[in-house]
Amino acid sequence: MNAAILIADGFEDAEMVIVNDLLRRLDISVEIVSCSGSLNVKSYYLMNIEADKLLSDVEDCLYDAIIIPGGPSSTATLGNSEHVISFIQAHDRHGKYICPFCSAPVRILGLNGLLRERRYTCSGELWMQCQDGVYVNEDIIIDQNLISGKGLGVAFEFSLTIASFITGDSQRGEELATHIYLR
Amino acid sequence: MNAAILIADGFEDAEMVIVNDLLRRLDISVEIVSCSGSLNVKSYYLMNIEADKLLSDVEDCLYDAIIIPGGPSSTATLGNSEHVISFIQAHDRHGKYICPFCSAPVRILGLNGLLRERRYTCSGELWMQCQDGVYVNEDIIIDQNLISGKGLGVAFEFSLTIASFITGDSQRGEELATHIYLR
Repeated sequence: MNAAILIADGFEDAEMVIVNDLLRRLDISVEIVSCSGSLNVKSYYLMNIEADKLLSDVEDCLYDAIIIPGGPSSTATLGNSEHVISFIQAHDRHGKYICPFCSAPVRILGLNGLLRERRYTCSGELWMQCQDGVYVNEDIIIDQNLISGKGLGVAFEFSLTIASFITGDSQRGEELATHIYLR
Repeated sequence: MNAAILIADGFEDAEMVIVNDLLRRLDISVEIVSCSGSLNVKSYYLMNIEADKLLSDVEDCLYDAIIIPGGPSSTATLGNSEHVISFIQAHDRHGKYICPFCSAPVRILGLNGLLRERRYTCSGELWMQCQDGVYVNEDIIIDQNLISGKGLGVAFEFSLTIASFITGDSQRGEELATHIYLR
């Protein structure tokens, strides 16, 4: 069981780190993948982190899930990258989970016609910029292999939802939630 | 308004990043301070980050708050460091906010006699190892200048509580919670 988190400079700090943390706690092998040409990536709130891989290292890999946090400049960079779009399309064709969060559902998928007929959620009123997909105003929306989430405050639930689909086991996620005092 | 987050190798990823993210969103100047001799610090879930400062750079500074995330080896390192203990004591004498989270209340403060008569919370049953302070089984406990929190699942509330005390304004935190869809 594995997942890739796609980021570029300006990724939203806690949206990325919460999903990485919770999935690793649940023994899912996670790789933080930089799509900006360097392993050193700077977050929206100016924290420097080292990604595990460059997108060019893993372009031929298929993960069980691709997860894309928000952060305006990160999602703009990813949405304008042919390599990122091809990588997402390949995973989508193979039925792998595509998991965009916050601004990513619209900026990366919607504006590139990748939502298709599927229902999705996203932050704020970004859905108004987008003819693709069917916007639903909920915290988390699951439609086929597309799992989208609204924003930072629901990052725990988003992470546990993704984990339950990847592993086919929601029980361990519920135990983890209790263990970390998540109400 | 400023705060220092004290970490060493093994700090709990999201416990650190959530508080950094939310405080920076609320325009509090936050410095991530490495107490392990190098700016490069590895998290519990093996993410490499670059701290803003070394403890030796800021030992003579007084911040409005010192925040200490969990992570077993990070809190063990910090609890065994005379420099860290002196830094906390100096802030405590000046009435600055001391904000330990998860294992930090016991491993760093309690085992060094720094809780004194104050009420605190912490993760799991660590309180049983500690004669110092008065353990209360709640998510967040505020007693004078000591703000302690139980663990990862309450990190948002812990961060917003600290911010409200540093800034003297709970309204902006409530607006932020709404903005990020925190229920």
